[in-house]
Amino acid sequence: MRGILSCLLAGFGLAVLVAGSTFARPAALETLDEHNIRKVLDDQVAAWNRGDIDAFMQGYLKSDQTEFVGAGGILRGWSAVLERYRRDYPDAKARGELSFSNLEIHALSPDYAYALGEFHLKREKDNPSGAFTLILRKTPDGWRIIHDHSTAYRTESPKPQAQ
Amino acid sequence: MRGILSCLLAGFGLAVLVAGSTFARPAALETLDEHNIRKVLDDQVAAWNRGDIDAFMQGYLKSDQTEFVGAGGILRGWSAVLERYRRDYPDAKARGELSFSNLEIHALSPDYAYALGEFHLKREKDNPSGAFTLILRKTPDGWRIIHDHSTAYRTESPKPQAQ
Repeated sequence: MRGILSCLLAGFGLAVLVAGSTFARPAALETLDEHNIRKVLDDQVAAWNRGDIDAFMQGYLKSDQTEFVGAGGILRGWSAVLERYRRDYPDAKARGELSFSNLEIHALSPDYAYALGEFHLKREKDNPSGAFTLILRKTPDGWRIIHDHSTAYRTESPKPQAQ
Repeated sequence: MRGILSCLLAGFGLAVLVAGSTFARPAALETLDEHNIRKVLDDQVAAWNRGDIDAFMQGYLKSDQTEFVGAGGILRGWSAVLERYRRDYPDAKARGELSFSNLEIHALSPDYAYALGEFHLKREKDNPSGAFTLILRKTPDGWRIIHDHSTAYRTESPKPQAQ
């Protein structure tokens, strides 16, 4: 009986070690995951700058629960997010040239991470910029944005004199 | 030998069952966790409305890495967040009466969750409202906000005619 108990405990210990290696350190994002998340965002920027909003939208999880939050309110669903981008950025002049900066990615679990960064649009008439918080989920198809909270800054960074 | 192997496998299986109950379904937040997170936010609202910014700030993790993101930019550190609240809401008139609505909480792992909701300030001169995304971490002291992205809506909900 004691033998069986020791043996059960040994098996349990082994499993805890295995599980520990997967779950114990959510703060340290695997290098490959970080690389893959950056790739999703780089692909979005490239898609935006060639005017391909459909390809840009591939970065978001195609789900009714995907959320976009901003000064216009809370949008729910991949299609609603696509519609907003099409409405607010109907042509090349409105889209301008997009870039991201100061991107930081933090793991929340093996399957979730969040990204904090800044966006910049270079347009003829203005250069709006702002901050975004993205929550991403690792899916069988790769990392996808499930929640995007984006805020335009009150003042444009290139014109610090304007309040 | 086969006996020991079966026994090790049994122990392993037991541990997988135990681990599974904790890790397998990050989307289903434990009722107690949801209750505790709502309590943190309810306490913040109560603290704000009695003018106690220090108590309000207890909802945030006291860390140099706690982030506050909004139209004013990205702030880092619990003290910087406190300073902003003190600067932007110096008196009862500026603070107004705070309430939250449409709060949704989603688990990201046993130790992380995010909350999406709307804030409303009732003040003499205006009634600003907006949306917030909070990322919360379960600490030994309870759930704490590690990332707050808040955006004021372009239009006030009580005055839909104003664009």
